[in-house]
Amino acid sequence: MSTGSAHVPSSLLPELVEGALREFFVSRADIVGAVGGGYPDAVAALESFVLRGGKRVRPAFAWTGWIGAGGDPTGPDAGAVLRACSALELVQAGALVHDDIIDASTTRRGFPTVHVEYAELHRTSRWRGVPERFGESVAILLGDLALVWADDMLREAGLDAATAARVTPVWSAMRTEVLGGQFLDIAGESAGDESVEAAMRVNRYKTAAYTIERPLHLGAVLAGADDALVDAYRRFGTDVGIAFQLRDDLLGVFGDPEITGKPSGDDLRAGKRTVLFALALAAADATAPASAQLLRDGIGTDLTDDQVEQLRGVMTELGAVDRVERRITALTEEAFAALDASDATEEGKVMLRDWALAATRRTA
Amino acid sequence: MSTGSAHVPSSLLPELVEGALREFFVSRADIVGAVGGGYPDAVAALESFVLRGGKRVRPAFAWTGWIGAGGDPTGPDAGAVLRACSALELVQAGALVHDDIIDASTTRRGFPTVHVEYAELHRTSRWRGVPERFGESVAILLGDLALVWADDMLREAGLDAATAARVTPVWSAMRTEVLGGQFLDIAGESAGDESVEAAMRVNRYKTAAYTIERPLHLGAVLAGADDALVDAYRRFGTDVGIAFQLRDDLLGVFGDPEITGKPSGDDLRAGKRTVLFALALAAADATAPASAQLLRDGIGTDLTDDQVEQLRGVMTELGAVDRVERRITALTEEAFAALDASDATEEGKVMLRDWALAATRRTA
Repeated sequence: MSTGSAHVPSSLLPELVEGALREFFVSRADIVGAVGGGYPDAVAALESFVLRGGKRVRPAFAWTGWIGAGGDPTGPDAGAVLRACSALELVQAGALVHDDIIDASTTRRGFPTVHVEYAELHRTSRWRGVPERFGESVAILLGDLALVWADDMLREAGLDAATAARVTPVWSAMRTEVLGGQFLDIAGESAGDESVEAAMRVNRYKTAAYTIERPLHLGAVLAGADDALVDAYRRFGTDVGIAFQLRDDLLGVFGDPEITGKPSGDDLRAGKRTVLFALALAAADATAPASAQLLRDGIGTDLTDDQVEQLRGVMTELGAVDRVERRITALTEEAFAALDASDATEEGKVMLRDWALAATRRTA
Repeated sequence: MSTGSAHVPSSLLPELVEGALREFFVSRADIVGAVGGGYPDAVAALESFVLRGGKRVRPAFAWTGWIGAGGDPTGPDAGAVLRACSALELVQAGALVHDDIIDASTTRRGFPTVHVEYAELHRTSRWRGVPERFGESVAILLGDLALVWADDMLREAGLDAATAARVTPVWSAMRTEVLGGQFLDIAGESAGDESVEAAMRVNRYKTAAYTIERPLHLGAVLAGADDALVDAYRRFGTDVGIAFQLRDDLLGVFGDPEITGKPSGDDLRAGKRTVLFALALAAADATAPASAQLLRDGIGTDLTDDQVEQLRGVMTELGAVDRVERRITALTEEAFAALDASDATEEGKVMLRDWALAATRRTA
């Protein structure tokens, strides 16, 4: 990712975010040590998970939104703003740890998922009970801890009272929306909802609002932006956010496991009702009943790599991949138009365009 | 539970707490409706769970702690304090919903647990996938929602900035401790830790700190109490809290399912490493090896009702039940001594004694 900022190159942002997260974990060492037993080790596992990486997309959008709304990265409130933006990574850690249980994912960021890691520990320690059950239980609790620590980190970020009062409704809305989006996601998968609309609704709340729209909104209110800029950011964020998820849908089926760190075709095996899949199915129903049958029979089953390959071919031939790519392009252009017409600073516009392109053209 | 307050009889407190919770859910209707799909129904299920009952023990201790530290239930900040105390019930709802997954409990408060309710919905709707998996996934998300809404409710309670600043470290410590206690609980169960010390550590953090010590601490700082009163409350809270859990241990093995709303002997089947069990085991190891064998073979297995009955007999004969009862009495007396020596108001002392007796002598 390139940068348009003279002050804090966005390429350095992940490092700054990780520094803030590391400090937060240090601040929790005393109480975790007081509880004792195996708790410090479990918290260390959570810390590794949080620091292991990811692209820090949400803090980046929040930080960039703040700069675009006039925030000054060399000013006195930059530290508090950085900590508030970084707290988004703890929400994300909690969401991922729980999502990996829900999706029964075995790897994340190239490592075993938390529930798999603890199931392994149980197995090699020859403990009582079912290793998978233990792993999931620990992962439920560590995900909870990440979620509640996200709040602590935001609250302790050092924002002044007026800023905090602007931030909290956005923070609250974001979490209510993402949990709603996740709920709709699994409910739609289970009910076998095949509509593009249902997939788009999940996309809107599970990803777009959570990953881009609300982080940008957060950045705007951190800087005390006016309603017009908030509106422009939210339109930009929604469009780029949907495009971001459409890219994710493509990577979930066509991504390179070496780069994504997740087995290729995972979304198909997990039965994810993506917009990509819904478009392929709609096209197949109209023109290629045998392909429709293949898609319906395959989704949500334990596909072999060959079967994944076959479904990929079907989806490509049906034109669904092209349609998703075109939609990504169109959404990105609309988003850029909204941004260009806004009062965001020139520097902010350049950075947001860079982030948006990175988010929608990424390979992992 | 009787009452010593002329202002707000503590018998009315559950109703006031439920009113505050109901109002909070109303405040979330717009955003939940905007997400749409099946989300409003899922949130309604969570609301039913939250409003269905329980004894509102944590809000009661927080509220009473506030009164005992000079809080005025007829004063202008009573509404904000009530809402802050009531937010504890959302933390508790999240903890219970997740705990029921972890413990594989099928009923709670006389109703199916959330994960069982949603597994049933999946089954009767003939959806795709495994009903139990769906039920647990929904319960993970609804538990998360309760946890993050607890924060929202506290933040929106209407506390002034100085009070909020005193409250948040206590709130934060409480959640970090309870998650630690839950972690130690399942880790101890899995590792088959048989020591009384390990059971007491779980007791201290999973229950005593979370249920009584920290809620009272919260009440104290809500009223701006001095350090001496905070210390007295915390000693009282720790002792009563441990006694409360010891009562729970007895009820988990000997309780009447008609009154507790949970199958009797559940704790034995779930393999809970309670102080009661650890004491029975230590006594058996010293004097009755055959009984020790029975206890070790039985704990954490799918016991029949007859086997539960047999283990009950063994634990009683070994004197473990009497020892736990005596410990409850001793802890309660020590707690009362700390309370009596404190500067809590007379009214507060009377109420706290009442609550403490209700918590430690309860039958459900």
